[in-house]
Amino acid sequence: MVTLSDIKNYKDLQSLDDKNLKELCASIREEITKVVNINGGHLSSSLGAVELIISLLKVFDPQKDKIIFDVGHQSYAYKLLTDRKDRFGTLRKWGGISGFPNPSESKLDHYIGGHSSISISAALGYAKARDLLKQDHHVVAVLGDGALINGVAMEALNSIKETKSRIILILNDNKMSINERVGGFADHLAKLSVHPVYTKIKETIKDQCKHLPKGEIIEKKLSGIKYSLKHFLQPANMFEELGISYWGPFDGHNLQEMETIFNLATRYHKPLLIHIVTQKGKGVPYAEEKPAIYHGVSPTQKSKIVKCNSVEWSSKSWSEAFSETILKFAQEDSKIVCLTAAMKEGSKLHKFQESFPDRFFDVGIAEEHMLSFAAGLSAGGLKPVVSIYSTFLQRAMDQLVIDIAMQQLPVVIAVDRAGLVGEDGPTHHGLFDVCWARSIPGLNIIAPRDIEELEIMLRCALDKREPSLIRFPKGIAPLRIGHYTLRNDEIWGKSVLLEKGTTWAIATYGTGLIIAYEAYELATKMGIPTPSILDIRFIKPLDRRHIEEILSSHKTVITLEEGYKAGGIGEAICEIASNLQNPAKLKLLAIEDRFVPHGSKTEQLKGCNLTAEEVVNLYLAN
Amino acid sequence: MVTLSDIKNYKDLQSLDDKNLKELCASIREEITKVVNINGGHLSSSLGAVELIISLLKVFDPQKDKIIFDVGHQSYAYKLLTDRKDRFGTLRKWGGISGFPNPSESKLDHYIGGHSSISISAALGYAKARDLLKQDHHVVAVLGDGALINGVAMEALNSIKETKSRIILILNDNKMSINERVGGFADHLAKLSVHPVYTKIKETIKDQCKHLPKGEIIEKKLSGIKYSLKHFLQPANMFEELGISYWGPFDGHNLQEMETIFNLATRYHKPLLIHIVTQKGKGVPYAEEKPAIYHGVSPTQKSKIVKCNSVEWSSKSWSEAFSETILKFAQEDSKIVCLTAAMKEGSKLHKFQESFPDRFFDVGIAEEHMLSFAAGLSAGGLKPVVSIYSTFLQRAMDQLVIDIAMQQLPVVIAVDRAGLVGEDGPTHHGLFDVCWARSIPGLNIIAPRDIEELEIMLRCALDKREPSLIRFPKGIAPLRIGHYTLRNDEIWGKSVLLEKGTTWAIATYGTGLIIAYEAYELATKMGIPTPSILDIRFIKPLDRRHIEEILSSHKTVITLEEGYKAGGIGEAICEIASNLQNPAKLKLLAIEDRFVPHGSKTEQLKGCNLTAEEVVNLYLAN
Repeated sequence: MVTLSDIKNYKDLQSLDDKNLKELCASIREEITKVVNINGGHLSSSLGAVELIISLLKVFDPQKDKIIFDVGHQSYAYKLLTDRKDRFGTLRKWGGISGFPNPSESKLDHYIGGHSSISISAALGYAKARDLLKQDHHVVAVLGDGALINGVAMEALNSIKETKSRIILILNDNKMSINERVGGFADHLAKLSVHPVYTKIKETIKDQCKHLPKGEIIEKKLSGIKYSLKHFLQPANMFEELGISYWGPFDGHNLQEMETIFNLATRYHKPLLIHIVTQKGKGVPYAEEKPAIYHGVSPTQKSKIVKCNSVEWSSKSWSEAFSETILKFAQEDSKIVCLTAAMKEGSKLHKFQESFPDRFFDVGIAEEHMLSFAAGLSAGGLKPVVSIYSTFLQRAMDQLVIDIAMQQLPVVIAVDRAGLVGEDGPTHHGLFDVCWARSIPGLNIIAPRDIEELEIMLRCALDKREPSLIRFPKGIAPLRIGHYTLRNDEIWGKSVLLEKGTTWAIATYGTGLIIAYEAYELATKMGIPTPSILDIRFIKPLDRRHIEEILSSHKTVITLEEGYKAGGIGEAICEIASNLQNPAKLKLLAIEDRFVPHGSKTEQLKGCNLTAEEVVNLYLAN
Repeated sequence: MVTLSDIKNYKDLQSLDDKNLKELCASIREEITKVVNINGGHLSSSLGAVELIISLLKVFDPQKDKIIFDVGHQSYAYKLLTDRKDRFGTLRKWGGISGFPNPSESKLDHYIGGHSSISISAALGYAKARDLLKQDHHVVAVLGDGALINGVAMEALNSIKETKSRIILILNDNKMSINERVGGFADHLAKLSVHPVYTKIKETIKDQCKHLPKGEIIEKKLSGIKYSLKHFLQPANMFEELGISYWGPFDGHNLQEMETIFNLATRYHKPLLIHIVTQKGKGVPYAEEKPAIYHGVSPTQKSKIVKCNSVEWSSKSWSEAFSETILKFAQEDSKIVCLTAAMKEGSKLHKFQESFPDRFFDVGIAEEHMLSFAAGLSAGGLKPVVSIYSTFLQRAMDQLVIDIAMQQLPVVIAVDRAGLVGEDGPTHHGLFDVCWARSIPGLNIIAPRDIEELEIMLRCALDKREPSLIRFPKGIAPLRIGHYTLRNDEIWGKSVLLEKGTTWAIATYGTGLIIAYEAYELATKMGIPTPSILDIRFIKPLDRRHIEEILSSHKTVITLEEGYKAGGIGEAICEIASNLQNPAKLKLLAIEDRFVPHGSKTEQLKGCNLTAEEVVNLYLAN
């Protein structure tokens, strides 16, 4: 009986027989499940890729060959088998190992893998560099079927023929991205998977491996089959059309089969795509049954909720609050339609889909298309509401500028996961949206502070004939922050003074308000003057008049934001102050010029000095 | 003899016979050529689309049907035939009509068309809106073959099957995007164009039109052919694989053929792609011969060069200066490779391609892929230099953040066309790059002020083990601005004081320096104190110490930038000032929250108050 503890790293795989390897797979699955159930993480896809990763590491040597995992949350087994077995218990923890491949963590991780679909481009780059530098190693990209339909992957597939470099693409087809995959390409893959011609080709490939011939020989043999089959029923194959040899589909849980094929691939001299079929959640019954639910698992230790007298918490996440609200509005207004790019689970949009299947669009991992599609829906007379994570909006900035803002189409974009996101780490934080979107003419940017306001802001935005971003963070949403009674006529473009102090003020928005109220209570406890608290609320248009008033009536104003300082609201407020005669002394508290590592959100906030203590210290240091 | 002056608009097309229509085509070509040769504009593609647009307007009614032109600089004939014939002489002029479709110009323009490849998504949005609102009109997207390979178009193609909406895509295949098209998809299109099966199918489609049957009948007929041909040599067709019926290829200069096909398309009930083949530059011999050269034509009236004693002009454009410099460096260092996304002409990179064909990559209109590919090249040990227009960098921001900056890969990105671009107008200005890139950790952003400095900065950036943007504007480059002798050891991260005044200073970068020197000379002429001129030069890292010194030693500091104020350097300087005891009074001169219309750059600068007069007035108003 071989377990993970019996081997040092992937080099020991060579000495294991098939039975041992299967035992090892079970042991790896046990370790992944154990750690993910405590630390949280991506379970289903990691479980599905265990045999694939073992086979890869038997055939390729990551000290020489380059292996690039797309998205990369499928690569936990790779981490266990390379140089991070002993640290695997620290997965996704502050100071621990990342949930994604990261070259700064190990030199056996060859490319960062946080956002999907870049692996083919990166692999082509590596391959071309190898050719020009006259090196001789393999370059392998491992990507899921969901990632394949994103534009950047398609662009790379198109350019393979041109690049003329030898690369191996492994398509890990688990028949879904996060939810079930969508679109014509998925159907195409499904067709290939069951086509008798490919069964025949597949058998021939496997057969050839016994002799391990040169690439040219297998190529000739394959051409023969294809030619003879063409007269019967040669299926269209989009990869072959793009100049990429296609081998598959193979069983992604059959170690022997994969090792054979990968070995043959190392002897092949053309761009090659190997299609393997795996099961998401493989080996763990509950994950096999509900792979989308176990795509992402939350850590057992929930992130702390700040206890604060002025913050009344709900039991809902912001995503839930948003999806319930938009569902309610959609029941009243048949023109409202809702869009997501493969984030139905994360954005809690099932109920919307169930209630209005015709008015719900999951476009797959295709953010650029989603925004242009939303613009078209809006131009055509509907009221599209786009749900997108802040980090993924980075993929569609051009569409946000030209298709939406420049045409002044009233698309409402719900920017989820704005701010720090905790365990997923730097590739997934939503720290750019404020800095970037703020410069786009004619775009409204609103940060509701609680569920009550989310509903009001969504309604206002839907009534406007202008585009709006409504941004909110990951995690539990406050039911109510502060004791301010809203008056509908004074909402749009208005910031709101939630607490009235005398000498100093905190100007902030969104999650910053929680820290502001903590600071308020800390000040009370310390017996120092309590601050005014200004909820900026409208990042754009900025309520200049109100901010001027705050700047003129306090000695110190601390701006506080869970976002980058460069280009943030703090700087905008400095500009407002520069026009005043005797403005308050300004102190900016925001994230400095660095990528914030993974860990709990509490640790991240602390690591960025975004704490109540720091706020009070800044005031006292004045 | 029918000419353009004989008809009012597209409605008159119905009464013209074939001979008249051909005469009209010639007249339209004459008008386009005449105006473009004076005003500048996109000649080759507009000439190629004349018959296509006439046929479209004979069959579809833009008052009811939606026609979306991709990129849209092919649509001059559409402007002439809808409601802008009398204003066509104002093409691309300040206050005149735009060189692209623009719904705010005419309600017969249904979607803005500046950047490529969004037309399928937009059309799908329109089509879905039509279906949900139970309307009944046609939705047509017209896109070029170059646009088809961009990711967003591919994402949209993939989602057509899912959307289940009836749309008509017209692929205007002129066998190039701007330069010759690249990649596997282009080969696929070429194969389809000559395949005998499609000739057969095409004939059948045309044949059917005589009876104008319902869609189902033609569908049945076509299935019959395809089935019978499958046994012989059915070619793979990627569109059909994606659930899109494919008709083609047809002659895009044959009016009768197109009218017939478009008529039939209106009776067809499935998503349909009609492949037409046109010739770029058609009808104008010099444009036919060199379509890439006449893709974009410059206006006869060259933009004024500011005459200023301290500015010594070269006779080269910034693009030429960059391409010559990088070619020189590449001759010394075999690791340097150069990338462009279909902008070889605009970026003047032919010589690089000729000298180092293996080290030059034109990836087509595929900006996202280009940046990830560059990251891979860099990770693999090469020194990639990416040439990209500022406006197109908007398409690849996510790759800039994650693939390049987060991995700290030393990719050098030459950001061409930074700032206002003149006649191409709002979709093409480079006004966001500073605001957006400034917030990205670990990224250097440099704005060399003249050719001398461009070379030094490029060399420094190539030597750094960090990623850098080097941004420069459209147009003629100064050989030298100011009289400052550079010392290599004090370049990186350092701003430079070009003129030393006493009471006031101008802090600026790039093109702002020209205006600053104009203001300097104006001040001299007016007998008021001349300003200090600070070339910020490093937008990131910002030379805080030097800026503090300037702020502390002047009474007034005017920041000046050809970019948006929100998120710009002016705000960053306000933040620096907020930390000082007695800083100068700050005045920010930058572009306010609006999209700047097309026109000459001089007019645009004036329209944005970016003038020497305004600078001096701001100082005097203090």
